[in-house]
Amino acid sequence: MANALLPNAVVPAMKLYDYFRSSAAYRVRIALNLKGLGIERAFVHLRRNAQREGDYLALNPQGLVPALVIGGGAVLAQSLAIIEYLDETHPEPPLLPADPAARARVRGIALEIACDIHPLDNLRVLRYLTSTLGLSEEQKDAWYRYWIDVGLEALEMRLVRDAATGRYCHGEQPTLADICLVPQLANARRAGIDLSPFPTLTRIEAACTALPEFAAAEPSKQPDAEA
Amino acid sequence: MANALLPNAVVPAMKLYDYFRSSAAYRVRIALNLKGLGIERAFVHLRRNAQREGDYLALNPQGLVPALVIGGGAVLAQSLAIIEYLDETHPEPPLLPADPAARARVRGIALEIACDIHPLDNLRVLRYLTSTLGLSEEQKDAWYRYWIDVGLEALEMRLVRDAATGRYCHGEQPTLADICLVPQLANARRAGIDLSPFPTLTRIEAACTALPEFAAAEPSKQPDAEA
Repeated sequence: MANALLPNAVVPAMKLYDYFRSSAAYRVRIALNLKGLGIERAFVHLRRNAQREGDYLALNPQGLVPALVIGGGAVLAQSLAIIEYLDETHPEPPLLPADPAARARVRGIALEIACDIHPLDNLRVLRYLTSTLGLSEEQKDAWYRYWIDVGLEALEMRLVRDAATGRYCHGEQPTLADICLVPQLANARRAGIDLSPFPTLTRIEAACTALPEFAAAEPSKQPDAEA
Repeated sequence: MANALLPNAVVPAMKLYDYFRSSAAYRVRIALNLKGLGIERAFVHLRRNAQREGDYLALNPQGLVPALVIGGGAVLAQSLAIIEYLDETHPEPPLLPADPAARARVRGIALEIACDIHPLDNLRVLRYLTSTLGLSEEQKDAWYRYWIDVGLEALEMRLVRDAATGRYCHGEQPTLADICLVPQLANARRAGIDLSPFPTLTRIEAACTALPEFAAAEPSKQPDAEA
């Protein structure tokens, strides 16, 4: 288990640059587990700014995790692009439904989290608030909670009223939408946000985290986890 | 032209909720033009908060544009999900290359803009900075420019050194990556950002905006445009 997620068959030549607390990396870990793919990992310590060091920037100029090195040395960045790549190259089980409108629904939920909630609460943004703008910890925490609250409220409303919502965000199988939802709710919990106004989201979260593929990807279970 | 982008054949039953200055809506307008699709449009005045009114929230609980109503009344949200839907249902010309690694590269560039640059400079975020946090216009403007600068710098570095970059972000045909790049650079220009450090990005932008499909989608040319 030392350098694996679930004890899956290792795919040679793929390597994930990971950090236990990055929720974008957490998404990719879930996808790898759902696909049954074991791959080599390297850990980039974001809080120590390892992502700003020359070696890592040469790999990924954006200086963010995750990054996935694939056969031939190409480097893929951006968690959703990486997960779509895994889905296209390892189609079973599919992480998107077959119908185009249903695919758009799943991608829309994923993007609602990945574009409109998560980036506002990224570490680099929080640092700008306190370091550059000189905001207090209270103001920073209020910012963090505000964007999660606004985002989860809209998502709860979208999911609760839509018959396409099932045991998971879309029907009866986990998809890209659930892969984005679970890490975002983990962040919300860590920030002490009251999730009781979001019963649909937490019901889906519970269904997901009961699966070993989601559970093994949790931050606290990774080799680089810290208290 | 009154309610169309290019004089394309109108696809019945599709309707775009649009706003001239929304760069996410601008992306969808470019995609519709590249696909040769003319559709009905409605305009949601974001600066007057029309997106927070009941009718629109019933359609899109997130209260953001764009939204695309498709046959049967389903509503698609999130520009990248909408564009992938258009690409899957109207495959020519393709907005993504065929090879999975190349697709991941194009999606990665698009997401780098859509997740890590654009959301930080959204109208609702700028309003939080000034209204809730009481920051000055100067601090707000510095924030706006900072996230664009950081993002474009990484993107320039990624594109300039990669042989897969061609006349456009990926090879010799416009893709989803260019569709995201052009509206983001338009925002940067509007904010008075010096783009001379980004010669690869501005070279690609010029190649794109020379195409009528990109030019007709520009904010200033839309029926709801204001000075």
